[in-house]
This record gives sequence, structure tokens and C-alpha cells, in this order.
Amino acid sequence: MYRLIKNVGYARRGEFTTVHGTVQTPAFMNVATAGAIKGALSTKDLEDIRCQVMLSNTYHLHVRPGDEIVRQMGGLHRFTNWKRPILTDSGGFQVFSLAKLRKIKEEGVTFNSHVDGRKIFMGPEQSMQIQSNLGSTIAMAFDECVENPAEYSYAKQSCARTTRWLKRCKAEMQRLNSLDDTINKDQLLFGINQGCTYDDLRIEHMKEIRDLDMDGYSIGGLAVGEPKEVMYHVISAIEEYMPKDKIRYLMGVGTPGNILESVRRGVDLFDCVMPARNARHGHINTWDGIINIWNSKYETDPSPIDSKCDCPVCRTYSRAYIRHLMKAKEMLGMRLCVMHNLYFYNNLMEKIRDSLDNDTFESFYRENVDKLDTRI
Amino acid sequence: MYRLIKNVGYARRGEFTTVHGTVQTPAFMNVATAGAIKGALSTKDLEDIRCQVMLSNTYHLHVRPGDEIVRQMGGLHRFTNWKRPILTDSGGFQVFSLAKLRKIKEEGVTFNSHVDGRKIFMGPEQSMQIQSNLGSTIAMAFDECVENPAEYSYAKQSCARTTRWLKRCKAEMQRLNSLDDTINKDQLLFGINQGCTYDDLRIEHMKEIRDLDMDGYSIGGLAVGEPKEVMYHVISAIEEYMPKDKIRYLMGVGTPGNILESVRRGVDLFDCVMPARNARHGHINTWDGIINIWNSKYETDPSPIDSKCDCPVCRTYSRAYIRHLMKAKEMLGMRLCVMHNLYFYNNLMEKIRDSLDNDTFESFYRENVDKLDTRI
Repeated sequence: MYRLIKNVGYARRGEFTTVHGTVQTPAFMNVATAGAIKGALSTKDLEDIRCQVMLSNTYHLHVRPGDEIVRQMGGLHRFTNWKRPILTDSGGFQVFSLAKLRKIKEEGVTFNSHVDGRKIFMGPEQSMQIQSNLGSTIAMAFDECVENPAEYSYAKQSCARTTRWLKRCKAEMQRLNSLDDTINKDQLLFGINQGCTYDDLRIEHMKEIRDLDMDGYSIGGLAVGEPKEVMYHVISAIEEYMPKDKIRYLMGVGTPGNILESVRRGVDLFDCVMPARNARHGHINTWDGIINIWNSKYETDPSPIDSKCDCPVCRTYSRAYIRHLMKAKEMLGMRLCVMHNLYFYNNLMEKIRDSLDNDTFESFYRENVDKLDTRI
Repeated sequence: MYRLIKNVGYARRGEFTTVHGTVQTPAFMNVATAGAIKGALSTKDLEDIRCQVMLSNTYHLHVRPGDEIVRQMGGLHRFTNWKRPILTDSGGFQVFSLAKLRKIKEEGVTFNSHVDGRKIFMGPEQSMQIQSNLGSTIAMAFDECVENPAEYSYAKQSCARTTRWLKRCKAEMQRLNSLDDTINKDQLLFGINQGCTYDDLRIEHMKEIRDLDMDGYSIGGLAVGEPKEVMYHVISAIEEYMPKDKIRYLMGVGTPGNILESVRRGVDLFDCVMPARNARHGHINTWDGIINIWNSKYETDPSPIDSKCDCPVCRTYSRAYIRHLMKAKEMLGMRLCVMHNLYFYNNLMEKIRDSLDNDTFESFYRENVDKLDTRI
């Protein structure tokens, strides 16, 4: 499924084949929380901005419209009309960050829905069942995502439980994939490395889950409060313990600079709500740095958001028009900003892949790692 | 400019040629108040839903971003990237309906901006200057839109002023079109018939403005409080006084039933915010009547909004998905509903034109006039 095409230092150029198509890596997944990208983007828009993988949130879809309904509608691909790969998270992150009054036991977590307050129980088996109902291409294991900084003893104990949960996830996914009426019998399952910021816990946990021979490996529990240098350190610390022949996914990361640093440390796959969220607030990625479209200097600026960008927005609309739309609270303003920023991320990954192919990654990295994260 | 191709009773099949392209009539204009259709529709979407004419609001664009800025950006066509005809209203309707503390004099109207409260003066010359700055294909004369019911004496006095204003509009537009740096030197100007619900005032006013040989004639001051039968009566009362060789535009109308009735009485052009506004609330036009997408019976309905519709939304998405998006407050839900409803209106006009071409208008009218306005 994952094929390593080339190493450039620790950086990896590869491809990941699924029943819904092949993903060229490194890649960035575009987040469609409730089965749609926030900002009124359609699946046609997603194709136009060259999205390879859509990511949807199990917790949100379980609460609304309900995974049973998505299953009845033929699964997430048919429901949303997205034909390429979809990754669903496990629900764990939202359970631990959004839900109120949660209670963790060995079996799983009891919590109250953030929509209607109703009590929900979710453990490894429930998460697998929901994701099987959604029929995503890639399911994520149900884990506990611990906020940083965390106590060593709690981190250790949580890690051990996450391993036990992973074994249950794997068994349940195998069972579900063998059922006649399962929507996607080839559903893949990724394990998630945890261990907070403790190298020994991270490495120990990585070794444990490596032995379970998962379809891919994620690094979770980063970008949740620790300095970015600590995040980079953790990635480097576990890199040699991650299987070379499996795809590696750093969850919830990040800025263009974060992505460049992480690719350079051996990560293949990313997701983050940041580009779309920033876009909705008018903070726009360009190849010269981040601009704020609300700035009055753009009031009569006829140039595109980024003259170096060939996205559908930059080919068509001016900064002046987009700024006007944002000021007039026209939804089209948000949509255009989101389309541009997600295209920028997808295009960044293309350029990273090209630079790996052409042995120019180091210079591409040096030229962009700071610049792209700078507000101008 | 207007060519009458065929009469079927009072109904007219025609075409209207402008510097920005030819409009097949009867036609419905899609309302882009501040230079964008509400609901995140792009100009590409507008093409996809077969919009012929975009309508923008002079008052809104004058207040924000400012018509001087639009002028600097090369006019509304370049600013919005819409290449086909654009009609701008005069600002009068918004001045009389939205603005606070307005004061009408012979010269024009002083009022406070609804955005920042700043005092604005607008009279015929100002409205023409603003519309010239916007560079629309068709400008509307500055008139007073009186709410129904109105006192006869006030209606008569207002009508006389609207005629005097029209003469000033015409002179000012001729002057502006002759200037070297005018964006659209071929800008057209439509006169607006007023007279509330009084036949004699309506007819008298129509005769007066007919003599001014305008580029087109609008019927204003209807659909502002009077019963629809009264509206139909007024249209029929003035029909014979409207020039046969000029396009006729009924402002702010209406439901599919209203449009069918008005086409049958000799109207060529329509605009209304209703289809887009209804769409944003989940009230959707279909060829069987109006559905409410929030209805729980659509929760697991895999069929398109309207199986008789071939719009980009109905070709792609299910009722269940769109209902989910609306419930999850995903902007995409609104966008898809707006796209469908506007397509429905544009498609309704196509079918009306086809039925006029094929001499089946009467049966098309009878089959649809009540059904399309019925909630099902």
C-alpha cells in the first residue's frame, strides 16, 4: 500500500495506494469536519484545488447526522460525492477536547454530546463500528490524546491503555471488514503513537504498536500545547522506530514551516484546520508570507492574492474584490479565501514532492521554512 | 436593442442586445446585491446555473466598497469578473426602504447610511454618476418608490416628481456617456413607471415617460404591499401604453406564479431576492411545488432535490446530504440551495421561452401557475 519511492535524508517521497485511488506523498489532507469543507466548498471545488484526501470527523458525524444514516446513504463517499480517499479520525480527539463531563474507563469513554447533551459511550469497538458505517478509506484507532504538558505517570498509564485499545480496534476492524454488508471491506486502520513529550514513552509505545503491523502509523498528541522544537524533537526521536514501509501521518499539523520541518524528519501525511480557519478570518498564505486581506492597502489592489499562485481564485479575482466581499460579509469572500489557502497547502506539498524528485528539497526547505510562516 | 420575435396573446418572446451580450427574454435577473450572489456563489457558479443578467444594488455598492473604488477597479464587470450584462438599480428603492431619517426634496433625498450612519445625498444626477462609475450595462432611473396603499394626492405628486427626475436622469446619463473616461459609454437607461395602484396615474405616467424614448421601461412600485390581483390589474391597465419595441421590466417580482401571470400580461424581465432568500432558509422550488428541506422525511432521502431538475446540485447531491448540511450549519448547504433555486428560476424562464417558441405557452402556464407556488 505504501511504496517508498525515494529518501532524501530522512524525507520520503512515496505513494500510498487505496481502493479509492493513489495518494502521492508527502500529502496534506483537507478537513471536511461534518462531511463538507467549511466555507461552502463543494466536492467539485475540492477537485479544482487538487485535494488528494478528504478528512472527516467521526465524532461530529456520529452526533449529526448519525453514522447509521450515513451508512444507509451508502457511506461517506456516496453521501458527500467525494470519490477519492477519505480518512476519518477516531473521535477520540473530539471526545477529549470538545465533549463535556467525560469519564474514562478501561472499556472506553462516557461523555455528553456537545450538540444536545445526550450521554454517549465510545470505546475502541464503538469507534470502529462508527467508522465502518461511514465507510472511510482509512480509519484511525481510538486513542487517548493527552494535552501537553502531562505528568509522566499519567502519560505512561494512558499510553499502555492506548496500546490495549489499539489491539481491540484491530480485532474489531478485522471482524467488521469480514461482514457481508460492510460498506468498505478494505477499510484501512492506522495506529497512533502517543507518549506526550517523553522520549522513552514515545519510543516504547512506537515499538509496541509497530509489532501490531498496522496499515499506517500516526503520531498523535503533538501540537497540543508543547513548543514546536519539542514536537520536532519527538518526531526525530521516534523516526528510526517507525517502519520504513508504512505511511506516517502527523496529526493536526500545521503551518507550512511545521510541515517542511516534519517532512524533513520523515513524515508523509498531514492534516490541519488552520489554513481553512485562517482563511475565514482573512489570513492568507502566499509564497511571500502571510497577508491579512482586511488591510486597507488592499482596498484598490487589482492584483491576485498571490501573483505566484495559479489557483482558481488567483486566476480570477483581485485582492480588492475579495477584501470587499469580506467587509460586506458576503459568504463568497470566505469561500474564495478558503479555496486559496487549501490550494496553497496542496500546492506546497506538490512542490515538496517535486523538490524530492529533483533533489532540490534542501534548498526549497531553506528558502521557505521561515518565510512562509511570516506575517507580511 | 429589443427585438420582439413573437407575440402569444400579450406574452412576448424577444431578445435584448447589449454591449455585454444578448439576453433572451422573458428573463429573470439574479440578484448580486453587493457584487456577489448571497450564498457564496461565484461568477463561475452563475454561468453554471445559466444566469443571463446579474443585478447589483447601487445603494449598497455606493456605501461599500464605494462606487469610486469600483470605478478605479475598472467597473463592476472587471471587479466581479462577470462578463455578461449587469443591471444596476438606481438606489432609490433602498434609500426609501433601508435608510434612516430620509428627507425628500425636489433636488433629491438626504438620508443616513445604514452601515455607518453617515449623511448621504442622492438625487437623479448622483444616481447616474454612481451607476456610471459602476459601469453597468443597464442603469435605472432614480425614482420614488411609494409603498402601497398610498394616498392618491401623494401618489400623483410623487409621480410628477419622478417624471421630472427621469428627465434629469436622461440628460445626466447622456452627458456621462459622452465623457472620455466613462467606463461604459453605451450604458443604457430604463425609465420607471409609478402611480401606485391608481390606473389613471399609472397610465398618465406611462404616457409621459414613453415620450422620453428610454432604452427600456420598468414597472416599479408593485409587489410593495398590494394584493397580487391588484398588481396583475395594473400591469394589464398599462400594457397598451408601453412601447412594443422596448423591453419591459417588472421590478422585484416574484414567485413562479407571479412571473407566469406577468409574462402572460406582456412583461419581459424580472428580478427578485426571493428565490435566493428562500433557499437560504431551506425553502426549495421544485417542479412539483415548494419543499422544506428541513422536513425530517428527507433525513434519509437519497433522491435529488428535484428529480425533474438537471442543475449542478440535483445532478450531484441528495436531499439527505443537503438537509444534513443545513442542520450542521455548513455554508455549503446554503450555497447548494441557492444554486438550485436560482437555476430553477432561470430554467423556468427557458421553459417559458420554449413554450412561446412552440406555441405551448397557455398549457405550460395552466399546468404550472398554481402548482409551482404551492408548498408540498
